[in-house]
Amino acid sequence: MSSAAEKNIPDESSPGSPNGGNHAKSKEDFDLASIYVSDAQYNRNIFFDTSPQAVRLYLRYNHWLPQVMLYVFILVDLSLALFEEPAVLHVPTWATMLVELLCLLVFTIRLVHYAKVIPRDKFWKDPKNICIIVILMLTLVDMIIYGALKATNCYAVRWSRVLRPLLLVNVTEGRQLRRAFRSIRNALPQIFYVFLLFMFSLLMFSLMALKLLGKRGLKTIDGSPYFFNYLDIVFDLYVLVTTANSPDVMMPAYNASFVFAIFFILYILINTYIFMSVFLAVVYNNYKKYLKEEVRQLVRAKRHKMVRAFAVLQEQREEGGEPVVTQANWNQVVRLVQPDISNAHRELLWSVSDDKNQGCIGKVAFVQLADLLNIEVITLKSRPHPLQSMCPALYLSAPSRLLCRLVQHRAFVIVYDLIILVNAVFIGLDEENPLIGNSEWVFLALYLLEIVLKLYVFEPRAFFSRHSFWNWFDTIIVVSALIATIINSAMTASGGYTSRQILDIVFILRVLRLIRVVDSIKRFRAIINTLIRIGPAILTFGQLIVVVYYIFAMVGMELFKGRVKFYGEDSSDPEKAYCGNILLKGTAFAQLNYCKNNFNNVVSSFILLVELTVVNQWHVLSSGFASVTHASARIFFVLFHIVVVIVIINIFVAFVLEAFFVEYSVEKSNLQTSLERKIEELELAVAQEKLEDNLVNAMETIDSDQGTGQSAHSKPTLMFKIASKRYRTVDALLQRMFEADLDPEDFAEHEEAQSGNFSNPTFSSV
Amino acid sequence: MSSAAEKNIPDESSPGSPNGGNHAKSKEDFDLASIYVSDAQYNRNIFFDTSPQAVRLYLRYNHWLPQVMLYVFILVDLSLALFEEPAVLHVPTWATMLVELLCLLVFTIRLVHYAKVIPRDKFWKDPKNICIIVILMLTLVDMIIYGALKATNCYAVRWSRVLRPLLLVNVTEGRQLRRAFRSIRNALPQIFYVFLLFMFSLLMFSLMALKLLGKRGLKTIDGSPYFFNYLDIVFDLYVLVTTANSPDVMMPAYNASFVFAIFFILYILINTYIFMSVFLAVVYNNYKKYLKEEVRQLVRAKRHKMVRAFAVLQEQREEGGEPVVTQANWNQVVRLVQPDISNAHRELLWSVSDDKNQGCIGKVAFVQLADLLNIEVITLKSRPHPLQSMCPALYLSAPSRLLCRLVQHRAFVIVYDLIILVNAVFIGLDEENPLIGNSEWVFLALYLLEIVLKLYVFEPRAFFSRHSFWNWFDTIIVVSALIATIINSAMTASGGYTSRQILDIVFILRVLRLIRVVDSIKRFRAIINTLIRIGPAILTFGQLIVVVYYIFAMVGMELFKGRVKFYGEDSSDPEKAYCGNILLKGTAFAQLNYCKNNFNNVVSSFILLVELTVVNQWHVLSSGFASVTHASARIFFVLFHIVVVIVIINIFVAFVLEAFFVEYSVEKSNLQTSLERKIEELELAVAQEKLEDNLVNAMETIDSDQGTGQSAHSKPTLMFKIASKRYRTVDALLQRMFEADLDPEDFAEHEEAQSGNFSNPTFSSV
Repeated sequence: MSSAAEKNIPDESSPGSPNGGNHAKSKEDFDLASIYVSDAQYNRNIFFDTSPQAVRLYLRYNHWLPQVMLYVFILVDLSLALFEEPAVLHVPTWATMLVELLCLLVFTIRLVHYAKVIPRDKFWKDPKNICIIVILMLTLVDMIIYGALKATNCYAVRWSRVLRPLLLVNVTEGRQLRRAFRSIRNALPQIFYVFLLFMFSLLMFSLMALKLLGKRGLKTIDGSPYFFNYLDIVFDLYVLVTTANSPDVMMPAYNASFVFAIFFILYILINTYIFMSVFLAVVYNNYKKYLKEEVRQLVRAKRHKMVRAFAVLQEQREEGGEPVVTQANWNQVVRLVQPDISNAHRELLWSVSDDKNQGCIGKVAFVQLADLLNIEVITLKSRPHPLQSMCPALYLSAPSRLLCRLVQHRAFVIVYDLIILVNAVFIGLDEENPLIGNSEWVFLALYLLEIVLKLYVFEPRAFFSRHSFWNWFDTIIVVSALIATIINSAMTASGGYTSRQILDIVFILRVLRLIRVVDSIKRFRAIINTLIRIGPAILTFGQLIVVVYYIFAMVGMELFKGRVKFYGEDSSDPEKAYCGNILLKGTAFAQLNYCKNNFNNVVSSFILLVELTVVNQWHVLSSGFASVTHASARIFFVLFHIVVVIVIINIFVAFVLEAFFVEYSVEKSNLQTSLERKIEELELAVAQEKLEDNLVNAMETIDSDQGTGQSAHSKPTLMFKIASKRYRTVDALLQRMFEADLDPEDFAEHEEAQSGNFSNPTFSSV
Repeated sequence: MSSAAEKNIPDESSPGSPNGGNHAKSKEDFDLASIYVSDAQYNRNIFFDTSPQAVRLYLRYNHWLPQVMLYVFILVDLSLALFEEPAVLHVPTWATMLVELLCLLVFTIRLVHYAKVIPRDKFWKDPKNICIIVILMLTLVDMIIYGALKATNCYAVRWSRVLRPLLLVNVTEGRQLRRAFRSIRNALPQIFYVFLLFMFSLLMFSLMALKLLGKRGLKTIDGSPYFFNYLDIVFDLYVLVTTANSPDVMMPAYNASFVFAIFFILYILINTYIFMSVFLAVVYNNYKKYLKEEVRQLVRAKRHKMVRAFAVLQEQREEGGEPVVTQANWNQVVRLVQPDISNAHRELLWSVSDDKNQGCIGKVAFVQLADLLNIEVITLKSRPHPLQSMCPALYLSAPSRLLCRLVQHRAFVIVYDLIILVNAVFIGLDEENPLIGNSEWVFLALYLLEIVLKLYVFEPRAFFSRHSFWNWFDTIIVVSALIATIINSAMTASGGYTSRQILDIVFILRVLRLIRVVDSIKRFRAIINTLIRIGPAILTFGQLIVVVYYIFAMVGMELFKGRVKFYGEDSSDPEKAYCGNILLKGTAFAQLNYCKNNFNNVVSSFILLVELTVVNQWHVLSSGFASVTHASARIFFVLFHIVVVIVIINIFVAFVLEAFFVEYSVEKSNLQTSLERKIEELELAVAQEKLEDNLVNAMETIDSDQGTGQSAHSKPTLMFKIASKRYRTVDALLQRMFEADLDPEDFAEHEEAQSGNFSNPTFSSV
């Protein structure tokens, strides 16, 4: 799953133009330099060939279209499980096989493309390539065997489906995911020792429970002997660690005597509270430690790449002087790296790099470029309101100005917050009352009025700018609600028929509208912004979970499919009471009506795995499946608990904790400060509410963000603002997380950069 | 609960002897200085009077006996709940009242003593004194009212019992507890905002659930309408956050359609995973922040006290020179502060302080004394084995030497580990088989042999030294098991009668013996040592939990006592099926046989509160109590959940995490290193296995710790070793936790100390 070679970076000794002279740079040079810069910006560590042909191929390899296509095909490949036996939607086997072959073809093409980009020996040394090849081969073999067996009507298992999610890990773009897996793998030894000690404690307590409680002839609530069998006790006490069978497991002993409660309380204290905290501590500590090391190497590799880019672009201004990069070349590269960058933004970055206005920059300033590009700068063009241009007399008249002042007033927000609250109460009331049913139209009109008023006051393009999350949110919700409500009314009026689906959508939209209130309360906004900021990083965990879930779902489906049947609500089949399997008769599984929690298709499996992740009642579920197969089926569920709850959820919690601490403690980086200072120097800053903005810049609100059409004419027409706490990439967040620890090294690297001899970083230390 | 005045420290301008001359110090001076040093060592911040009389009173106030007595009486006061209505053991009301009066008297005496020690104005400014006085008065008033009402047979409530645990917080010795409460109080605003946002999310989801699911006519498993009432939905979804009703709450909707599962998964993701992680992050972050600030002030106050002690003891050696403290005076003070310190240990500390061997030390070196005293130094006297003295010829003979070598060999440990494992299997087997029953004697003999052999090889006083935890553990367990087994056998042999209690004890001892294995595995030892090291700090949380539990138990008993009855296992009363309350008929509470989970006495209440802390099934418990009283009773349980699970358990987890990180990352302090260097210089170190020792020095094992009687004669007869990671006091651990952050300030303080003008620290900043 990991890859050693991936962590290597190019170290060819002669980049495209090894000259120190001043002759003009070729297009190839710019391509090469821009690739280095772009790789540094996005922390890609691909050891590509530097021949012009390979560079062109590499540019195409990094294009967004093939990357998106790759992920689409991985998604298609993964979602094939919906159509394969046991299927949600039945489709002939040849159809799924054909689609899978197509996917395999796409993956092969992508891999061949990759093989052409990097040197052959590097390609074969990289475990992730080997991994992909093996997965593709095994899948092909499995498909042939399966097809042959099916053709002869034999029993066949599509075992290679387990391998599919591993593609997600091993494609070039799965860097974050691979890093997460590496972190877990590195933390495993430590976790393992704590786990052993925990198991020892579990076995000791179980032995004591057997001796103390086994011989007393106690009965559980369903009349079976209590704590009689050692293995059952171990399972019961393991479940108690997850708290899922508390206090039921204790009740028979507790009913017999007060004293036995002490045993269970002691057990819970030691195993549930202490050991689970220790697990979190160990996972957190190791995760942090290894991640920090990886990020340190990332930073080193980034600098190295920037120095290579510099080597390609450098020229000697005066004899014997330091090599420099001219503004023209720099501009060319930046345009290549980020085609959508505005000229103004590029000029700004240049003026930060070229602090002394010399028209060229040295190595140290150039190396910053990757980080500078990663700082999100919001460009605001303040234009006059279109109505003002069209009809200045009317727009600038006294009533119009008064209206604008009213809408911008704090009271306007408060009034609408009150309207939302009233609306919430109305939604909660019974909508079959005609008064309340009709009130919906009033609220819709009020919300529409708000949007129209704001569009009148604020410049429309600024109102719908890319960063105005809440404006987009509001408008989309209100307009959709309007459309849905009209359709619903039309249907009701025409035939008296109400579509449940449309009504559901109307309800959801109505409730979603209420979320708006959160934005008006500053403290809430701050918390939500933090959550949204760490969102992309959490998505890595989403992928991690999908990989693990998919594997467990595939295995679970092979083990348990069809064992438990769901008969639907209206069925009067007598087998419904025990989920169609006589072995479940009288079990808690059947009594609690858990029949739909089964492995009969991939969707059910995923929902069941979510329930197992939430932990509660997992012993009922696992015992249910154990009773329809074999007692050892519990191992599957215990394994799932260990992998997902003890390891992955703890890593998730560790990540959220760490990210929150960073949010609470880290100030702006030096680079951001210097960029901001420059913006201020150039008097291009968004002057007002600047301090407030820094608090809320993840989701700009209209109130604090745009200059209004009216007041703008006194200000420069172009303004910048740093989205100080936003990270373009997950890596940027990670680097920020460990910035404090990286700084000393940072400086050392800078000195190295100045002295010009970058040592080839060694990545074998992990 | 907090106290501003407590955080003050003495700042009288003229300590006992304001002279800088050289005349001999009086006994009063030494008393005063030793009090300052002792206060600094244990971080007591009591603003005592410096008059000789008050100092003598203060010495008596700090004596261990009155302190222990105070805690005994608090314990008695708290445990009165066992005997008061509703009682575990019935005792006449006048008896408990009399005991309570006695307790009140003791608390009053202690308070009066305290009032005499500190200046009057300080006494009345300290909230914790006011608090105690108010508690005592209210209790007295309550007792009188209760007595009067009881005498006239009216209904009476002992409401002042809720106040009892507050004594634990407000006595002078409850510093740790007060600090924990202060940390919680300081973190509350932040927690509150997250909680509000969480509640907002809960209410939104509930509204959506009402709209989407309420009108579909779905039924829960017991046939009642599903998601019909808004308040019930809010409660159900709040319970889902604690995962206690997952997946049951989802099943009706999920059975109706796959799609609704998405709603619940989204809800769990946002509210259970994200919000609960955010709670932990916020609690952790705030707790750490405020604790750090408090510890910083503690360190400052400590230095301040040491400077005061120095001022009392200082004398001028030469005209115009720096004031110093002579060795004689220093010795005198150290003897007063720590009467049980060995001469050798004292000499060692002096040689660390007086590095240049001048016979006197300056202020900077003197200030270290408090920290030096807190470093645990293990003194080992290596004596020859008594058998060697008595019978050297035999003890030093070749077979005897061989035996010693065998016992000290690694294989000896491994053999006994194997024996323990075999023993574990035998314990697991059925002991009614005579072969297995008799094997117990073999194992007991083997364990006894091990102890005898070790006593033969190792010097007995060293074997049973204070730090040899495992030796003590082994010997006590084995000897007790021997005694219990003999008694049990004797009883069985005499009358065929087996006492269940004795048998239980035998079983427990047998299983406990197996724990020994943990000590032989180094990694396990390391984890366990860490746990034991943070143990004392965890006890603070124990007190915190007791305070909160007690208050909830008292309130709960008044609200719910007698509503649910437990009929015993053998009862055939038909009311047993519904816990003696017809309102419970058919509820999950009665069906799951939870009748013994009630508030009918203080022990039941505490066990019930533990079950609520573990969270699982708390909705069944709270709904049960709601159905026998009123739906609003759920508020009691939700409140308990918020206070204990969201706040206190999170703080507990935060503390364990932080302590573990410190254990993993912090190296020895400077002072410890210099002490260790000194020990090595003086060639008094335990030479062998030194490195290993540092890993395991919380619980010395015999194998690595003591020199054997035989090899000792070549070494010095006295050896020291630093228990490097052990903390005498909880404060020491805390200071260690934030040492890294404190260091810069530390240095500044030192400079201040050198320049001689200690500013009076300001404690109003928190």
